Amino acid sequence: MVSDKVTLAHGAGGKLSQELMEEVILPAYGNPLLNELHDGAQVQMGGQVAFTTDSYVVQPLFFAGGNIGKLAVCGTVNDLAMTGAIPRYISAGLIIEEGFPVKDLKEILATMRQMADEAGIYIVTGDTKVVEKGKADGIFINTAGIGDVIRGTHISPKNVKPGMKVILSGYIGDHAAAILAGRHGLTLPDTIKTDCAPLCHMTKAMLEAAPDIAVLRDPTRGGVAAVLNEIAEASDCGILIDEEALPIHEEVQGVCDILGFDPLYLANEGKCVAFVPADKADTVLDVMKQNKYGRDARIIGEVTESAKGQVGLRTAIGGIRVVDMPLGNIVPRIC
Amino acid sequence: MVSDKVTLAHGAGGKLSQELMEEVILPAYGNPLLNELHDGAQVQMGGQVAFTTDSYVVQPLFFAGGNIGKLAVCGTVNDLAMTGAIPRYISAGLIIEEGFPVKDLKEILATMRQMADEAGIYIVTGDTKVVEKGKADGIFINTAGIGDVIRGTHISPKNVKPGMKVILSGYIGDHAAAILAGRHGLTLPDTIKTDCAPLCHMTKAMLEAAPDIAVLRDPTRGGVAAVLNEIAEASDCGILIDEEALPIHEEVQGVCDILGFDPLYLANEGKCVAFVPADKADTVLDVMKQNKYGRDARIIGEVTESAKGQVGLRTAIGGIRVVDMPLGNIVPRIC
Repeated sequence: MVSDKVTLAHGAGGKLSQELMEEVILPAYGNPLLNELHDGAQVQMGGQVAFTTDSYVVQPLFFAGGNIGKLAVCGTVNDLAMTGAIPRYISAGLIIEEGFPVKDLKEILATMRQMADEAGIYIVTGDTKVVEKGKADGIFINTAGIGDVIRGTHISPKNVKPGMKVILSGYIGDHAAAILAGRHGLTLPDTIKTDCAPLCHMTKAMLEAAPDIAVLRDPTRGGVAAVLNEIAEASDCGILIDEEALPIHEEVQGVCDILGFDPLYLANEGKCVAFVPADKADTVLDVMKQNKYGRDARIIGEVTESAKGQVGLRTAIGGIRVVDMPLGNIVPRIC
Repeated sequence: MVSDKVTLAHGAGGKLSQELMEEVILPAYGNPLLNELHDGAQVQMGGQVAFTTDSYVVQPLFFAGGNIGKLAVCGTVNDLAMTGAIPRYISAGLIIEEGFPVKDLKEILATMRQMADEAGIYIVTGDTKVVEKGKADGIFINTAGIGDVIRGTHISPKNVKPGMKVILSGYIGDHAAAILAGRHGLTLPDTIKTDCAPLCHMTKAMLEAAPDIAVLRDPTRGGVAAVLNEIAEASDCGILIDEEALPIHEEVQGVCDILGFDPLYLANEGKCVAFVPADKADTVLDVMKQNKYGRDARIIGEVTESAKGQVGLRTAIGGIRVVDMPLGNIVPRIC
């Protein structure tokens, strides 16, 4: 039987690996495809397939509103969604530090399953490695995912044109604030927790309503500032956003003020930035507001002919300041 | 410019992440699909798709005949090949310890590219995370892969039937011996190095010659013993192999004798075990011998009606001993 701590032997491919699989992993993830326990899963796909991966190294592993497992599933689901795909199947690669509590592992895996169910996907293949105590930090999780690209969509920064509206799906900085608070021992009201969520149902509805959406991006590491700068550069357009339109919870602004961060640079894990033709902006906004993860969606700015490659912020007092690409080191290990 | 050590900021999603991508990762992996730098890649697939993942945590990172990058590409290529697929695209998720030498990273990425080229695949999507010094062990790499299942093949332990021949593609234990020697400071002759190699071209030829091959498996963690036990259990047949037929390099046996291991339990990274209908065994063997990774292929045993679920070894002196599933902890962090 599996003990209460993960040991090196659980990762060595023998009987104990089998037990970990049968007693902990399969009961959590179990589905007809995974249960085959091949070297790999076989799935039916047709046409244009989206394929993506992310590793998760967040600290702390458990935080307000979620844990590393929630991030690991939602992050990859969202990356697929942002390419214009319907996520179908994901993999889970676990790297576990020797001595990690099996109870915590079970909780993380259960959360992964919940998120997979909500997103409408299966976890179909996986791998578990164990390293010696002190050679990892609790648990690292990699997920890779595949999905069907929705026909008729063409998500590419190259399709971004002057006049397009920039829509943001809701409040920014909640995820980073939850992590920072957990790390620095700050107490936040219950309302401030990670925004981590699977956005694939919302993006599907958005693309059905407006297949000519040019770009969808989830502003994770580097925040909204990084996403806008990447798109400005790749599209060779300018982007001008309104400071007053940016939805920021007061408590998140408070954490930023205490710790010296700008919410524009903070990671989100359940938000989406969309570049939409002006005549479709209201339609897309309506569709987003009907989804629980887009209730607070709003237009935050537009694409401009001028200031190519740059992102400008029209401040509350009417000036315009340049929003630079973050240099790095904003908040390490946020996801 | 990227410095000579990887820093936390290289993993934070800002300018330094961009520089690491543009100066180190893209020059190594670069291909038309990866260069798009979407949240995910889009690729054309049709029909039955194989999907698999593995994380690599090997120590030491560099060893006789290879490095962690070689394992990371070949391991996932081989897992796809063993499901009866032609590998097409893989992802690369890097978790790097702060302070890791950029020179070593470049060497690892270059090896990944070489192996991808040999296997005929593209590295199309990836992710880089950096954790603080002491929170990982140099570098961990996850790869996930997708491939097209070859039409007309039906790889499944359930198709294993009594009378089938068990073919092994070559010498066993070389990879583990190379790792163990590196770890314990033993000096091996130049001829003993990791067997790590992409087997997809060989398995494709085998399946074209005999689409009714029941099972292909690469005997990695847990070695040939683990693979045979898994198949015996899943097929509800017995498996009887001949000790004298097992190809083991003398020097590998020597390492095993010194360190107290049984080569049957040691990991291989460029070997394949095939379960083949008796009347196709010679054909498959011929095809394997024509490939440089199958030159030493041979029939090592057969599937039996009796001793269901068990693996037996006919010893050189004529007795039969049971080959058990390894309990675990054979050689940790071998891949």
